[in-house]
Amino acid sequence: MHIKLNLEDYGIYEGISETIVTTNRGWSMNAAPMGIIRRNDKLFVRLFKGSTTYDNVLSEKVLVANTTWNAAIFVNSTFSDLQDSDFESINVNGRTIVALKEAQCWIAFECINIKLTSEALVAELIPLRTHVNKCRIRAPNRGLFGVIEACIHATRYRLTGEEKYLKLIKAYGEIVDKCGGENEKEAMKLLYAYL
Amino acid sequence: MHIKLNLEDYGIYEGISETIVTTNRGWSMNAAPMGIIRRNDKLFVRLFKGSTTYDNVLSEKVLVANTTWNAAIFVNSTFSDLQDSDFESINVNGRTIVALKEAQCWIAFECINIKLTSEALVAELIPLRTHVNKCRIRAPNRGLFGVIEACIHATRYRLTGEEKYLKLIKAYGEIVDKCGGENEKEAMKLLYAYL
Repeated sequence: MHIKLNLEDYGIYEGISETIVTTNRGWSMNAAPMGIIRRNDKLFVRLFKGSTTYDNVLSEKVLVANTTWNAAIFVNSTFSDLQDSDFESINVNGRTIVALKEAQCWIAFECINIKLTSEALVAELIPLRTHVNKCRIRAPNRGLFGVIEACIHATRYRLTGEEKYLKLIKAYGEIVDKCGGENEKEAMKLLYAYL
Repeated sequence: MHIKLNLEDYGIYEGISETIVTTNRGWSMNAAPMGIIRRNDKLFVRLFKGSTTYDNVLSEKVLVANTTWNAAIFVNSTFSDLQDSDFESINVNGRTIVALKEAQCWIAFECINIKLTSEALVAELIPLRTHVNKCRIRAPNRGLFGVIEACIHATRYRLTGEEKYLKLIKAYGEIVDKCGGENEKEAMKLLYAYL
């Protein structure tokens, strides 16, 4: 049962939205930062082989994109498993899906037209269910952005061990120190601990 | 007549919030990107000598911090004057102040305890009036932040002519190309045209 919706109402604008994607297979729940690609009114996701999100989407054909500005969630879901208590379960048309309790909002998607390459899958996303927890205004904070960029470079660093990524992480760490609040600074400390 | 308020309701969290600060002296209105510094519940702004914002604040002791995600406004207010039609005038306790029509919300502040150094002024900010136009959810977009970072480096490039800033602008331009929507890509084109 697909629904038609105004994507902006759920935080998803043109370009790539940095969301936390939650998936599950039975009782096993997963969260990971993923970009939701929007071109006109079509949505896509690209998932790399070897990730739990990849496996769950291939198996269940469903994912939930959660909107949050919580820097610590970006870091923890990049490098480790969130607590079960961070998730809520929702029944959608008879199947159980999971979302983040602390999300500002989320959209559950069916994944269709899945295309596999040797290293990734690309799926088109069709909205199944939406939920808004809270609408909050926030002025852009360079610290939050610094944490997100640092997470991206930290993933590359862990894959390759290349020094250049460490330098970029430190450069973004300086932006976080200067512009972030306690949440972003704490998230950056967590990130350094995972390296 | 000062007011007590929950700063989060107006988008201002711990750390530095990137806002568009609007000021006026009589009929002359100005807008420029400025960081609002929040430490616990105290707010500050640091303004460099030579800017219109500096002159207006020194003269009028009032500024308005506008919250927006509009990338083009960040670029245009960095490098040029916004149109008069972009502003609205508001009467606050008998004086006229100006805000951005397109802001999600704004807070008007009295500037107190102004400290002058040879190159800047630092003022403490005391809320006078608030306004919320619209509450919108938005997932973080690396493109929007790419535009903000590029504006910062573009200002430095124009001051110093140093090549390294041009390289940084181009690096952020690549993030905008990859992750931004039309608004962010258009803003980046505007920025290149101002260099």
